[in-house]
Amino acid sequence: MSEIVNRRDLDFLLYEFLDLEALCRSPRYDAYDRVAVDEILNAAQVIAEDKFLSFAAKLDATEPLFEGGKAICIPEVKEALDAYAEAGFFAAGFDEDIGGLQMPNVLCLAMNGMFSCANHSVFGYSMLTTAAANMLDAFGSDEQKSVYLPPMLEGRWFGTMCLSEPQAGSSLSDIRTRAKPRADGSYSISGTKMWISGGEQEISENIVHMVLAKIAGGPEGVKGISLFIVPKYRVNADGLPAEKNNIALAGLNHKMGQRGITNTLLNFGEGGETQGFLVGEQHQGLRYMFHMMNEARIAVGHGAAVLGLAGYLYSLDYAQHRLQGRHPQDKDPSSPQVPIVEHADIKRMLLTQKAYVEGALALVLYCAYLLDRQKTSDDVEAQKQLGLLLEILTPIAKSWPSEYCLEANKLAIQILGGYGYARDYPVERFYRDNRLNPIHEGSHGIQGIDLLGRKVRIQDGAALKILAGKIKETIAEACESEFADEAGVLGSALEELTRTTRTVLACNDIALRLANATLYLDATGHIVIAWMWLKQALAVPRKIAGTHSDSAFYSGKHAATRFFFRYELPKVFPNLKIVASLDDTALNITPKEFIG
Amino acid sequence: MSEIVNRRDLDFLLYEFLDLEALCRSPRYDAYDRVAVDEILNAAQVIAEDKFLSFAAKLDATEPLFEGGKAICIPEVKEALDAYAEAGFFAAGFDEDIGGLQMPNVLCLAMNGMFSCANHSVFGYSMLTTAAANMLDAFGSDEQKSVYLPPMLEGRWFGTMCLSEPQAGSSLSDIRTRAKPRADGSYSISGTKMWISGGEQEISENIVHMVLAKIAGGPEGVKGISLFIVPKYRVNADGLPAEKNNIALAGLNHKMGQRGITNTLLNFGEGGETQGFLVGEQHQGLRYMFHMMNEARIAVGHGAAVLGLAGYLYSLDYAQHRLQGRHPQDKDPSSPQVPIVEHADIKRMLLTQKAYVEGALALVLYCAYLLDRQKTSDDVEAQKQLGLLLEILTPIAKSWPSEYCLEANKLAIQILGGYGYARDYPVERFYRDNRLNPIHEGSHGIQGIDLLGRKVRIQDGAALKILAGKIKETIAEACESEFADEAGVLGSALEELTRTTRTVLACNDIALRLANATLYLDATGHIVIAWMWLKQALAVPRKIAGTHSDSAFYSGKHAATRFFFRYELPKVFPNLKIVASLDDTALNITPKEFIG
Repeated sequence: MSEIVNRRDLDFLLYEFLDLEALCRSPRYDAYDRVAVDEILNAAQVIAEDKFLSFAAKLDATEPLFEGGKAICIPEVKEALDAYAEAGFFAAGFDEDIGGLQMPNVLCLAMNGMFSCANHSVFGYSMLTTAAANMLDAFGSDEQKSVYLPPMLEGRWFGTMCLSEPQAGSSLSDIRTRAKPRADGSYSISGTKMWISGGEQEISENIVHMVLAKIAGGPEGVKGISLFIVPKYRVNADGLPAEKNNIALAGLNHKMGQRGITNTLLNFGEGGETQGFLVGEQHQGLRYMFHMMNEARIAVGHGAAVLGLAGYLYSLDYAQHRLQGRHPQDKDPSSPQVPIVEHADIKRMLLTQKAYVEGALALVLYCAYLLDRQKTSDDVEAQKQLGLLLEILTPIAKSWPSEYCLEANKLAIQILGGYGYARDYPVERFYRDNRLNPIHEGSHGIQGIDLLGRKVRIQDGAALKILAGKIKETIAEACESEFADEAGVLGSALEELTRTTRTVLACNDIALRLANATLYLDATGHIVIAWMWLKQALAVPRKIAGTHSDSAFYSGKHAATRFFFRYELPKVFPNLKIVASLDDTALNITPKEFIG
Repeated sequence: MSEIVNRRDLDFLLYEFLDLEALCRSPRYDAYDRVAVDEILNAAQVIAEDKFLSFAAKLDATEPLFEGGKAICIPEVKEALDAYAEAGFFAAGFDEDIGGLQMPNVLCLAMNGMFSCANHSVFGYSMLTTAAANMLDAFGSDEQKSVYLPPMLEGRWFGTMCLSEPQAGSSLSDIRTRAKPRADGSYSISGTKMWISGGEQEISENIVHMVLAKIAGGPEGVKGISLFIVPKYRVNADGLPAEKNNIALAGLNHKMGQRGITNTLLNFGEGGETQGFLVGEQHQGLRYMFHMMNEARIAVGHGAAVLGLAGYLYSLDYAQHRLQGRHPQDKDPSSPQVPIVEHADIKRMLLTQKAYVEGALALVLYCAYLLDRQKTSDDVEAQKQLGLLLEILTPIAKSWPSEYCLEANKLAIQILGGYGYARDYPVERFYRDNRLNPIHEGSHGIQGIDLLGRKVRIQDGAALKILAGKIKETIAEACESEFADEAGVLGSALEELTRTTRTVLACNDIALRLANATLYLDATGHIVIAWMWLKQALAVPRKIAGTHSDSAFYSGKHAATRFFFRYELPKVFPNLKIVASLDDTALNITPKEFIG
């Protein structure tokens, strides 16, 4: 078994749970078929294992250094990204007409999952580059696209997202970076950006920062934010990197995990002018950023899921080989010890990981598949519906894997015991790496406010209605299967969610309405993941003989489904009860009461 | 506010929740009164802040080095432990007749909590020394005590516990370290011990290892384990360290957290004979070890609780000073930002931490207080009852804080956001340090088996009956208070626990009976902590005017009680339902089903 992917499960998700083959029959994706997809995944797996996985532990122990204003990484990082670029993977998801491979989104995610799992930090460079290029592709001028997209799609120039500042993390409304118009139509950018991943490095030939800044005289708050392209090196008339653009690396942040990617504090306009180029229109920066946010948030959820997978695969392998103890019914100390995978509590911890990780993977791939269906549909109403479904699923696809696949990593450590706590084994690294995911790209609390404060209210609850309709379709189908009981519980949970939502939205006090938004988010997440499991259970062929080579795989899917419904879904009810009661215990506490 | 203790809360726990003053009136502890106790705590706080807290971050970043067979720490470690020794704290809990200060256990725990919170790794050396000395005091011969106890109580010699081996962690039955009788009555010890904290260092003048080993010809399994004193340096006729005893440091383990204390792989009998001295009788080693286990396990729970406290205090302070965002009802971006402690979700995360941390602290101090009551009681029946109560509370006092105060640390990181994920702030260190606690001193799963497989079955359920009786006393009292509703829910939960226990114990299949032992442990833990909160709520004086200087402190206790009962206790019911159903989903899964 590979340490970075369960190919059997990936095939199940792509071809049985989803219908990638049908997608590949659409004109947009008809360059791909199952044979081509398998070859791409095979090639990606080899590069991910050889060039990414091979030095992940070393990289964690050898952080980038801040030397003479530069950020220096070990050479393996560049070698890995060169191999990724050479395979054309930077261009995977982009349209053919701009030099992309026009792969389905769901395939891009599946393929990139192996890189992200193998070496989470290094994959970060490519993810950020793709995200920046995506935004340019959507909102940049033709000239901007012609200058920046080719080297980014070839992986020669990398991209970053510059949103946060030391005093403005979750509250983008309060950013202070300024953009002053210059005579030539460009802008002079000045200010400080914080937590910028990949903000400085000596790997790529140039860095294309996508920077949020305020133009003087614009509206206050988020309505006055504009988006700029700010390259590390200015680009000359031949499209080549020329003189420095005066972006100073003020320092590297030293993190608990994700140590392999530089995380920077950048000063724009230090020691000279920093030139920036407005993307699209003035004051529309946040809207452009949010357009890309869905994909970025799904990508974070996906990263959390594959880190969960890394721990699951490692601890499963360990449990099959580590001998320790005996069955409880065996009282003879001279009998041989058993592999710990035989112990009930180890099985429970493995099954919990499976339920979390494969449930999360199913959700993020499903979201990517919805994007593909949206892109390939020519029915405007269907596109709208798919868009609304994606809107409401995004905070869940971001937050649920971040929360529960971190929990999965905790269990992987527990299975290895003392060894799991030692840095000689990778599971503690996965746990440290994954701890970032509930924080960045909109913290867990922000996702809750997004869901309960915005998403369930869009068009009078249209998005929630579509989601509930989809879940009910699965419930109806399951009622005709051996999962009728599970379908019944999911139906009750969904009803409870609908009722709770109605109660909360009827409250006129916005502070009280949002007081338990995080609990609402977690409960909705559990319902969605239960739905994902029920869909997976139903995707298992009806009649599989015990001797079939896949029978264990399929019965494992059924076992994980039952497990999630028995051990996890019931947690939803007490949580929704609190939300529905508009409980104000936490809301009303005063700072003084915490410690007296 | 100190970063290592909330003295107001500690006073509440010692004097209002428990009755330390009454304890100090017993002949055993009458050298102490409230004035003396306060002075001790004051003195300890100063040393803990000046000598322990001051370099905790530096120590985490500067692991002990393995140099020429030695383990080298930064000099601050020795300076800290010297200050602790000079204050007499190594001897705090020991009887006066052997040179101890004969402090109440609950006071020792309260005092040591400040050191453990300030610098968890360094405190480990003193905790292990005290534990080893305790065991010697209980089971050593007079001669052994006269040789080893004085330098240990003076903090000149440190102690360790050598149980685990590379192939035997949870399964002590399978240890292979051998003890061969020598002509002079001592033993020749050979074998390898793993994960030995403090197993080698250059801080103390000698190291007294308490080693489990097997004497040839003894019974198989745990019945053939004996306990030995094995000093690093042999002790000469004057009681001074003399020649080396051939214990080789084979390596240092590099851990995720708790990096300040050496964690070692030791080879006994390498390069010459290692002499060991039998403690008590042959083959009774595990019994002796278990005699001390209750205190050691409560100490682990306490360590987890104070690490939780460290994160709580830090994130609370941060939340009061970090400005970010506005109230949801405030749509004016030019209005000033508010401290994040004003946001509902931050309050929820702080209140969750408070509920976990102060609930856990109450439990571990309560356990220490029970020990004191046992020691000061002259009623044999009462002593027996206290002993049984301690037996059943021990797995909970060990596991619940380890699980939930780790969760508290996760929330502390979340409150600090990106800053929390950076190593410049201490909260990620607390999280890394705390991750060990569910693993060592009997893993979380082992505690579940201890509770459901042993403790609830002692004397036909006598221990559980005593615990239930105590909880019912509190419920009865609460029924007459404003917490009558909470008392009712706790009563239902307790009933459900009793019913579930009966159902599970009636099952003849031991594997099935124990299959969900961890869930049983967690549910019982939540019930016990709810009880601790109800007891705290009742310890609040009935009439506190709003202007009273303590009114915020007391109303905070009430808020945390309500919070625990509303947000946490209801989680017990779905968990107990699974346990009672003897669910075998996890038990029956086969290795092949995990991945196919």
